[in-house]
Amino acid sequence: MLKIPSVSALSEHKGDVLKAAEWIADALRRAGMEGVEIHPTAGHPVVYAEHLHAPGKPTILVYGHYDVQPVDPLNLWETPPFEPSIRNGKLYARGATDDKGQVFMHIKAVEALLKQEQQLPVNIKFCIEGEEEITSPNLPSFLEANQEKLAADCILISDTALLAPGKPAICIGLRGLCALEISLYTANTDLHSGTFGGGVPNALHAMASLLASLHDEKGRITVEGFYEGVPELTPELREEFAKQQFDEEKLKHDLGLETLYGEEGYSFVERTGARPTLELNGVWGGFQGEGTKTVLPKEAHAKITCRLVGDQDPQATIDRIERHLRAHLQPGATLSVKATEKARAFSIDPSDPMLQKAADAYAAVYGTRALFTKDGGSIPIVETLSRVLSAPAVMMGFGLPDENLHAPNEHFNLENFDKGLLTIVHYLKSL
Amino acid sequence: MLKIPSVSALSEHKGDVLKAAEWIADALRRAGMEGVEIHPTAGHPVVYAEHLHAPGKPTILVYGHYDVQPVDPLNLWETPPFEPSIRNGKLYARGATDDKGQVFMHIKAVEALLKQEQQLPVNIKFCIEGEEEITSPNLPSFLEANQEKLAADCILISDTALLAPGKPAICIGLRGLCALEISLYTANTDLHSGTFGGGVPNALHAMASLLASLHDEKGRITVEGFYEGVPELTPELREEFAKQQFDEEKLKHDLGLETLYGEEGYSFVERTGARPTLELNGVWGGFQGEGTKTVLPKEAHAKITCRLVGDQDPQATIDRIERHLRAHLQPGATLSVKATEKARAFSIDPSDPMLQKAADAYAAVYGTRALFTKDGGSIPIVETLSRVLSAPAVMMGFGLPDENLHAPNEHFNLENFDKGLLTIVHYLKSL
Repeated sequence: MLKIPSVSALSEHKGDVLKAAEWIADALRRAGMEGVEIHPTAGHPVVYAEHLHAPGKPTILVYGHYDVQPVDPLNLWETPPFEPSIRNGKLYARGATDDKGQVFMHIKAVEALLKQEQQLPVNIKFCIEGEEEITSPNLPSFLEANQEKLAADCILISDTALLAPGKPAICIGLRGLCALEISLYTANTDLHSGTFGGGVPNALHAMASLLASLHDEKGRITVEGFYEGVPELTPELREEFAKQQFDEEKLKHDLGLETLYGEEGYSFVERTGARPTLELNGVWGGFQGEGTKTVLPKEAHAKITCRLVGDQDPQATIDRIERHLRAHLQPGATLSVKATEKARAFSIDPSDPMLQKAADAYAAVYGTRALFTKDGGSIPIVETLSRVLSAPAVMMGFGLPDENLHAPNEHFNLENFDKGLLTIVHYLKSL
Repeated sequence: MLKIPSVSALSEHKGDVLKAAEWIADALRRAGMEGVEIHPTAGHPVVYAEHLHAPGKPTILVYGHYDVQPVDPLNLWETPPFEPSIRNGKLYARGATDDKGQVFMHIKAVEALLKQEQQLPVNIKFCIEGEEEITSPNLPSFLEANQEKLAADCILISDTALLAPGKPAICIGLRGLCALEISLYTANTDLHSGTFGGGVPNALHAMASLLASLHDEKGRITVEGFYEGVPELTPELREEFAKQQFDEEKLKHDLGLETLYGEEGYSFVERTGARPTLELNGVWGGFQGEGTKTVLPKEAHAKITCRLVGDQDPQATIDRIERHLRAHLQPGATLSVKATEKARAFSIDPSDPMLQKAADAYAAVYGTRALFTKDGGSIPIVETLSRVLSAPAVMMGFGLPDENLHAPNEHFNLENFDKGLLTIVHYLKSL
C-alpha cells in the first residue's frame, strides 16, 4: 500500500490514486467486510464497505484517507518515499502515519475480530477517501447523497497523534483551513538588471514587500478583520492546555530550532491549538540555478495557507486577505489571486460518552487515560462529516508529533501500530 | 556559433564553452589573423589572435566574449535558444546580441579588409574570453601576466547598444557589480503547517521580511552607508541625459509595464545610468508544485545583485549588506551569505580622441554622430582592461535596448550587423 504513490495533489498520479483505492477495497474484502464499493466522484474515488450484523448495537463509521502529500524535496529523504523501510522500529514511507498506516489498523482490527470471534461487537462501515490531502473537494456531495447509507452513531477517525510516546490524546478540536496562490506580474519579459535595474518594477521586490506586510513585528497577522470569529482563550482552556505539560525545550531540540516563534502572548500549545495562522508554504520567482543571473524577473509566486479557529469564515478570510494584498501592492505590479481550498474549524464537547469510552480504551492499553486536546492541523472533512451525518466524531489518533508528516522521512512507530490495534478492539467492544 | 550552448555559469556546459572557444579560434584563423592561441585559465579559456603588419599605426585590442547567459525560463522562448532562427530581419538565439553576434562583426570586418585590401589599416589584437557572464574571474590575472602581449593604444569593445534604431551611442560609463546569495535556515526539517504553524519560525516569512527591509517606500536602498562613493548628479550630466530624449512611454508600452518604478527624484535614464541598485534576481523556498502543500519550509534562498556607480567599493557594499541582513534577521532564523562576484564601476572622459573618432565613424554609416551615454549594465572587465593595459576603452555597441539580452527570445537586428560591420571598418581606417 505504501509503495503506491497516491499523491492526490498531482494530476500525473491520478492512476496511482485509483490503484490505492483498489488496494483498500481488496484489503477490506479480505478482512471480511461486505458490500465493498469503489464510488467514483468528480475527483478521486471513495471506498465504502460495511458489516452490519450486530442488531441493537451502535453503528460505527470509520473514516480515513488513502491519498498522501507530495514528497518533495525528494533529496532530503533517507530512503525513497515509496519504498517502505523499517529502521529502529519505525516504518518509513510517505503515508506511513498520515494516513495509510492508521487506516490499515482499522482494517486489521476488523479482520482480527472476525477471525477470532466470527463476529463484530458493533455494526461497522468504512468510508475511506482519496482527496483528504487536497481538502476533500468531492466528499461533501458524496456524504449529502449517501446520508442514509453512511448513517452512524459515531464517526471514528485515526488521523491524529499521541501527545508523546505513551501519552495518548483524543483531539476535540481541529483548525480550519483556507489556501491561496498569489502571483505578481510586472513586465512582459524578464529584463536585464543592468539595462533596466533601478528603473522598472521587480516582481520579487513587490512580492517580498507584499508578503512582509502580512504580519507585524509581534507575529500578529495584520489583515484587517482577520481575527473576527476567533474566540478568546478562557482560563479553563488555558488550564487544559497547561495540563499537557508540553516540553518546549525538547521541541526546540528535536526540530533544531534556535527559538520558537509566533504571536506574542501565547504559548506554543495555545498558538497551534487555539490561534489562527497565515503561513507561507512556498515562494518563488526568478533564477534559482547555480551561479548568478542578472535578471529582473517578470513574475513572482507565493502559496499561502491559513489555519482557522472558532467561527472564522474561510471565504471571508480569503476575501480579507485579497483586499489586504490589493491595498498593499507596489505600483507597477499586477496581482492575481486563486483561492484553492477552504474548511471551517471543528470542535466537539469532551463530555460526549462516545469520547469518554474512547479515553477509557486508551487507558486499558496504554495504562493512562487519553487527554482531550486541540490539534493545530486541519482535517477539513471532520466538521462536514459530523454535521452532515449528525454524529460525534471521535478522533483516536496513534501517530506521534515528530513523525514528519507532510515532510521528508515520514514514518510511523510500529509500537503504536500494535497498541493502536488493541485500543481500537477495546473501544469497539466497549460500545 | 550560436548553436553552441556556451553557458559559462553552469558547470555542465564546460565542454560547450571550450567548443565555442575553438570555434572562435578557427574563425579568426579563417579571417587571416595570426598567432591564434587558446589560452587555458583556471576557468574557461581566452582566445588570442593578432595581426601586426601596420608599422607606425596604432594597435587596437578587440575585446569580447563567447560565453552566454543561462536560458531559463526555457518555456518562454518562441524558438529554442540554441537553434538560431531569423524572423523579420532579426536573428533569434541566446548570445545573438550579447555578445557572439557583436564579436563576429569584428572577425568579419578583419576578414573583409584582408580579402579586399590584403592588409589592415592598423595593428589588431583579439582577446575574446569565456567568462564575461560570470564577471571574468580569471581574466585579470591573464591580463596581468600578458601585459606586453596585449599592449594596445585602444581597447575596442562591442557589447553595448544603440539608444534606438538609427540612434548610435558610445558608452562612457558602466555600473559596477556585486552579487550575493543568501540562505535562511530555521528547523532541521520541513514541518506540517497544522501541527506547527503559528508556533515556530517559517523560513519564508523571515526571508520576505528581510528582503522587504532592503528598500524604503521611495525605492531608496536602506542599507547603512550603501550610497557612500555615489557621485551626485551634476546639472551638466543631467543635461547630457536629457539630450537622449528617452521615451519612457514607449518603454512602458514595449515592456508591458503599468508604470516605471524606482528611486524617487530621478528619471529612468538617470536611475539606470548613474544610480546604484540592489535587485533581487531570484527567490525560492518551500513548495512550488501544483496544488497545496501545507508545509513550513525549513529554508529559503535569494540571489541579489547590486549595480554600483562612482567610487562605490564592491567588497564594502557586500559587507554593508551582510551587516544589514544580520541586524534585520527575524528571531529563529540562521543566515548564510555567499558573495560571488564583484566589479568596480567604469567611466571614461568623452574628449579622448579615440572616442571622438569612433563617434565620427558612426556618423559616416548611420548619418548621425553617436551620443555619449552611461549604460546601466556592467562589463566588469572594462575597468580592469583599461586600468591594467593603460588604454582607453571604446565601447562601440550595435545592439538595441529591447533585444532581450539575458532574457528569453534574445535577438540581434541584422540591419545593425551590416551597419556595424561598416562602422568598424570606417573606424579602423580613420585611426
